[in-house]
Amino acid sequence: MESLALLLDRHYEEMVSIRRYLHANPELSFQEVHTPKFIANFHRELGLEVREGVGGRGVVATLRGAKPGKTVALRADFDALPIQEENDLPYKSKVDGVMHACGHDGHTATLLILAKALHQMREAISGNIVFIHQFAEEVLPGGAKPMIEDGCLDGVDVIFGTHLWAPTPLGEIHVRKGAIMAAPDMFEAVIHGTGGHGAEPHHAVDSVVLGAQYVNQLQTIVSRRISPLKHAVITVGQFEAGTAYNVIAEKAVIRGTVRTFEEDVRNRIERELEALLKSVCEGANAAYEFTYTRGYPPVVNHPEETDFLADAAKRVPDVAAVKECEPFMIGEDFSYYLQKVPGTFFITGAKHPDWETAYPHHHPRFNFDERAMLIAAKTMGLATLQYLEKYHK
Amino acid sequence: MESLALLLDRHYEEMVSIRRYLHANPELSFQEVHTPKFIANFHRELGLEVREGVGGRGVVATLRGAKPGKTVALRADFDALPIQEENDLPYKSKVDGVMHACGHDGHTATLLILAKALHQMREAISGNIVFIHQFAEEVLPGGAKPMIEDGCLDGVDVIFGTHLWAPTPLGEIHVRKGAIMAAPDMFEAVIHGTGGHGAEPHHAVDSVVLGAQYVNQLQTIVSRRISPLKHAVITVGQFEAGTAYNVIAEKAVIRGTVRTFEEDVRNRIERELEALLKSVCEGANAAYEFTYTRGYPPVVNHPEETDFLADAAKRVPDVAAVKECEPFMIGEDFSYYLQKVPGTFFITGAKHPDWETAYPHHHPRFNFDERAMLIAAKTMGLATLQYLEKYHK
Amino acid sequence: MESLALLLDRHYEEMVSIRRYLHANPELSFQEVHTPKFIANFHRELGLEVREGVGGRGVVATLRGAKPGKTVALRADFDALPIQEENDLPYKSKVDGVMHACGHDGHTATLLILAKALHQMREAISGNIVFIHQFAEEVLPGGAKPMIEDGCLDGVDVIFGTHLWAPTPLGEIHVRKGAIMAAPDMFEAVIHGTGGHGAEPHHAVDSVVLGAQYVNQLQTIVSRRISPLKHAVITVGQFEAGTAYNVIAEKAVIRGTVRTFEEDVRNRIERELEALLKSVCEGANAAYEFTYTRGYPPVVNHPEETDFLADAAKRVPDVAAVKECEPFMIGEDFSYYLQKVPGTFFITGAKHPDWETAYPHHHPRFNFDERAMLIAAKTMGLATLQYLEKYHK
Amino acid sequence: MESLALLLDRHYEEMVSIRRYLHANPELSFQEVHTPKFIANFHRELGLEVREGVGGRGVVATLRGAKPGKTVALRADFDALPIQEENDLPYKSKVDGVMHACGHDGHTATLLILAKALHQMREAISGNIVFIHQFAEEVLPGGAKPMIEDGCLDGVDVIFGTHLWAPTPLGEIHVRKGAIMAAPDMFEAVIHGTGGHGAEPHHAVDSVVLGAQYVNQLQTIVSRRISPLKHAVITVGQFEAGTAYNVIAEKAVIRGTVRTFEEDVRNRIERELEALLKSVCEGANAAYEFTYTRGYPPVVNHPEETDFLADAAKRVPDVAAVKECEPFMIGEDFSYYLQKVPGTFFITGAKHPDWETAYPHHHPRFNFDERAMLIAAKTMGLATLQYLEKYHK
Repeated sequence: MESLALLLDRHYEEMVSIRRYLHANPELSFQEVHTPKFIANFHRELGLEVREGVGGRGVVATLRGAKPGKTVALRADFDALPIQEENDLPYKSKVDGVMHACGHDGHTATLLILAKALHQMREAISGNIVFIHQFAEEVLPGGAKPMIEDGCLDGVDVIFGTHLWAPTPLGEIHVRKGAIMAAPDMFEAVIHGTGGHGAEPHHAVDSVVLGAQYVNQLQTIVSRRISPLKHAVITVGQFEAGTAYNVIAEKAVIRGTVRTFEEDVRNRIERELEALLKSVCEGANAAYEFTYTRGYPPVVNHPEETDFLADAAKRVPDVAAVKECEPFMIGEDFSYYLQKVPGTFFITGAKHPDWETAYPHHHPRFNFDERAMLIAAKTMGLATLQYLEKYHK
Repeated sequence: MESLALLLDRHYEEMVSIRRYLHANPELSFQEVHTPKFIANFHRELGLEVREGVGGRGVVATLRGAKPGKTVALRADFDALPIQEENDLPYKSKVDGVMHACGHDGHTATLLILAKALHQMREAISGNIVFIHQFAEEVLPGGAKPMIEDGCLDGVDVIFGTHLWAPTPLGEIHVRKGAIMAAPDMFEAVIHGTGGHGAEPHHAVDSVVLGAQYVNQLQTIVSRRISPLKHAVITVGQFEAGTAYNVIAEKAVIRGTVRTFEEDVRNRIERELEALLKSVCEGANAAYEFTYTRGYPPVVNHPEETDFLADAAKRVPDVAAVKECEPFMIGEDFSYYLQKVPGTFFITGAKHPDWETAYPHHHPRFNFDERAMLIAAKTMGLATLQYLEKYHK
Repeated sequence: MESLALLLDRHYEEMVSIRRYLHANPELSFQEVHTPKFIANFHRELGLEVREGVGGRGVVATLRGAKPGKTVALRADFDALPIQEENDLPYKSKVDGVMHACGHDGHTATLLILAKALHQMREAISGNIVFIHQFAEEVLPGGAKPMIEDGCLDGVDVIFGTHLWAPTPLGEIHVRKGAIMAAPDMFEAVIHGTGGHGAEPHHAVDSVVLGAQYVNQLQTIVSRRISPLKHAVITVGQFEAGTAYNVIAEKAVIRGTVRTFEEDVRNRIERELEALLKSVCEGANAAYEFTYTRGYPPVVNHPEETDFLADAAKRVPDVAAVKECEPFMIGEDFSYYLQKVPGTFFITGAKHPDWETAYPHHHPRFNFDERAMLIAAKTMGLATLQYLEKYHK
Repeated sequence: MESLALLLDRHYEEMVSIRRYLHANPELSFQEVHTPKFIANFHRELGLEVREGVGGRGVVATLRGAKPGKTVALRADFDALPIQEENDLPYKSKVDGVMHACGHDGHTATLLILAKALHQMREAISGNIVFIHQFAEEVLPGGAKPMIEDGCLDGVDVIFGTHLWAPTPLGEIHVRKGAIMAAPDMFEAVIHGTGGHGAEPHHAVDSVVLGAQYVNQLQTIVSRRISPLKHAVITVGQFEAGTAYNVIAEKAVIRGTVRTFEEDVRNRIERELEALLKSVCEGANAAYEFTYTRGYPPVVNHPEETDFLADAAKRVPDVAAVKECEPFMIGEDFSYYLQKVPGTFFITGAKHPDWETAYPHHHPRFNFDERAMLIAAKTMGLATLQYLEKYHK
């Protein structure tokens, strides 16, 4: 399979130029117009079957190998973020307040060039490869769900996806069986007490005191109500109450995030958050509102496919190390694909060797080592070819 | 009315000897046999009408003045405490483990000799004087209530009572309009969680954590739910939970005392204590038991009668100062009398001038300056005579 | 002394017209220009000695009786509030956003007409009467302190002052020995934690959790660290922390008010508020800032002078009842005068008999029954005359 | 290597009879006398080199293969528990109040018969096998540490050990890379407040309130101060304070357990537990004592050796399944061996197929399926032989 690596190496310059073009022309989630058009055109020029507007704004291109076989899907997301770029680069974002600050430009360039190379190897391929270009990964409810509902996984046997990761050194591939990305949920608790004169607490219901009790008590959800062998975090990021120092606040608003990796843990936390709020308020004759907004489900990698991908990665010469990573406490709607078909989502290290530390994702000065795209393409490509070969009847 | 003072001075030695006799022969609450007999005999020998067994073990003697008029009641309690006396006195308690450690021996001697002196002035008196000798003041439900139910206040227009008070200097009379003694209640909260292995909190309901939350939250009853202009205290004296450091405790037992001066404050505290317990437990699926045991009601002095008594006290030459005191956070069943008829309960200073500090009431070395009895007798006696005179038609 | 009442009755119309003129022309605290000028002119026309600019913007007028004697001071404040009047009255405030919403217009009219009447009785008066017209009562640090430093109490033997009180029925005078107005203080606690990703609490110091602990713990100051026989309230009116639900908040700002009636209670609360903040922060490696801003001291009435005023009030025919009131949980810089000379501050009921409830002080629709001014003038005037007479050598 | 399995099968009856003999004659930790003597005799009769009294009461037997090579250590513990057996068995404990309720009798029988079988294969063995019979696993500070200090690991290249586990089905072997057993620590916090009258909290320092705050606050160690990706549990099992419901408790005693799998987590928890206690007490002028007693370190399996053992287990025909288990929240002093040499500790399922649930370890009716010993012996034996073969130069 050296041919794939050679082909990709040969197309690297084009890959970089595509990435830079996309970087300079970012589009916000659910507002993507030119990017999917660009993607569709690219695939169409290669000669692949292309479906546009999948689930709204997605693009799905299918490469059919010369011989029949299994179907492998590869996914890249292509939306940008509402961030004003602060990098001083020739290919800096041309759109005010919009920036590819998470690397989705790289994901897309990776997948396009990988399609080109695989298409060139078409004669040797037994089976099909589906290139899923997803819109709107950054914003709930995400593009994955409608694209699946619109059939992007029909006939697919396995799916692979990766995230270029700036804090991870170039040359490293990180994998993890089971949960690799969290379910990032949001909750809001509003406590309605009864305002009053600061000197007459007995005529009021003090929402600040109740809010403080709530924040205190909800610590026990993680400390006492979730198994110590499970991962979970509940952070109250905001507490807002009162308008004057000497007036008892009628209302306290408490907002937070919940990160979990398992549905039963997530469900219990949602339930306990409301039960505690209810009890705190009922004990004081206060009313409350509780809203729990679910983010994406956790990304749960299938063990066999993860091992398969890791084995492939080990055979890529540019990959210096394949490691098992700890789970990430962030969300990704790749989870929806893995709920439907087996597969794995992995991390491709993208920190330039010269950088001491990388700017984090979503930072106005975020960037990555573009050679990571090549490594990602080789890893996903090799895994794809080995999978099709292995399962070829 | 100098005659009363002279008569009392003349009988002082007898007063002391009665007190010492009673001190040497104490009887526990609800077990008084010889004391009421002794009291009844004394009054009978004077020639007063005597009822024994009033409300159980009480004695009521009535002195009818030569002319008709109002009826004044004076009250003294006569029960002792389950305390082993540690004083080394000629008249030390002869009963093991029982001691007049609160001064009720003095109260009784005071009233008996006052009866004797007033009886000697009978011809000059318009109206009646009822001497209420009460059993069982120290132990719930107290003797006052059954004595009232048995008619001891029938026909009574006003009532006076005093407590000899060892920490207050001899010569001082302390009065207070409104609440002077608290309602001392008791509560017990039992939290039934679910025990479990110390390493598996998610399978248990941790009663220690819930108990701690309860103790924390109940602070807000005093700090937020009772008017800052009211007096109230809630003390959790006991917290007992768990039998092993590494086992989640199934049960936490929390016991405390509540002291208040007003029924609505008391009622709100009882209600809030249970409401908070309920909410803490419901928020965690724990069960609970709650018991609230009411002590005596607060002693609430009537303002006019308090002024009246204070005026009389100012005319007693042995009284160096009449002061307004802060309320006492202890209980007294004199409250029941004041719920039925107007009157006042006051403090007679009984600290010997040579003592730097007095042993507190209920201490094994408690004692008082016996001259306080004389002052108490003169004050109550003068108030009685002035009252009968004033309201004589 | 009927003559005073008659004189005041005769001047009532003028009193009302002065009050309405002042009401229509309010001036903010520390910005009073025309009001003190108006006051000074009035007194000067009467023929009194007048000092202007006392302590800044105050006016002091002295009436010297025909015969020598003691010196009585009477005080009225004259500043208005930054409130937009919502009353529809012929004498509605002409100044946008400024309103006499606390009755200081009435205080001033009362004092001016009382000066006029007393001046007319000058020949019968033994002693002096000092009319203290104070600026800036509503805003810290208040006008009382600089006026005292500028000599307004020099030679004064006693001082009286009153507040027209809209919620109290017309015809009632309320007095109280000891503390009648609270010390209203302000505190701000800023907790500086370390912000961080909502999913990585172990790398952050969560200021929301610390703030909640602080709010919880400071409940124990009132519930456990202050005598249950003292009055105190601590209200946290504001809790502000965090800018995003999923980011750990670096900073929590907690603001509240403290109301007390005694310096030692006030001092202990200030000390404990900081000690608890310190301990909460030190336990978590957070930094903090603590600011405690003292409002006016409590107004503590002198007992004898209060009785004296109450006696005078009882003799005013328009006064239907003299009552003892509960202390008020608000502040007044009359406290400073009472720290220097004996005296008393009392409440003059000003609720119109037709009103079911009055709009509270500082409300845009606040008003009072103007007849209360007459009652206030008669009560203060009679107390003044009786005082001068009583202490006339 | 079928020969080992055959040999072990042949010795199974003897294995059982040894186990039953040991079961009937249990000895408490640090009091073992006959058991080590029995073990030493057995090995000596086989012809192995035997050291007795190793580290106190341990026994170490060494089997030298015919050819040189690496050295594998195998460990079994042999102490019993202070539990009164409630099983009705022919081989029930003959010692009142002492019972092999954790399966160490089985561990010992397994190792002795394995030694016998391996000794019979001596000619085919390249290298050495060290049989470590450890005393006092159940009681701190354990026997492992002194045995290591006394040289039991000298020259050892790898170590294997297992625990027969009654709740796990017979036929299953459970392995885990990294931490498999927790560090089970103990802490005690004593809060010294100042006792006092229940009605006078301001003169006391209420240890119950402080204790409750401490319990509340320490929840935040797990919820906020430890990475959500780490495992940790802190349980307060006991809270004892106060002797009377109406007296403020001078002292609160709080005891708990801490379970962790990593030294830095453990260290942080110990530090935070004390820091929070200090801060709670300092904020209220209370004193405290804090004791943290470390149990065994976590058992941290070496990854390569764990894979090695798992591979061997898969080749044992009696082993139906090799699984990865979750870590156990209990302690084991096998940790000390793994701090010195590579190796792994694994779980051998021992639940009889007919039992619905097994009595848990340390239960008076604990028992296990004796066939598990055979499986344990085969697994450890095969791993040993494969290891010696693989690393044979």
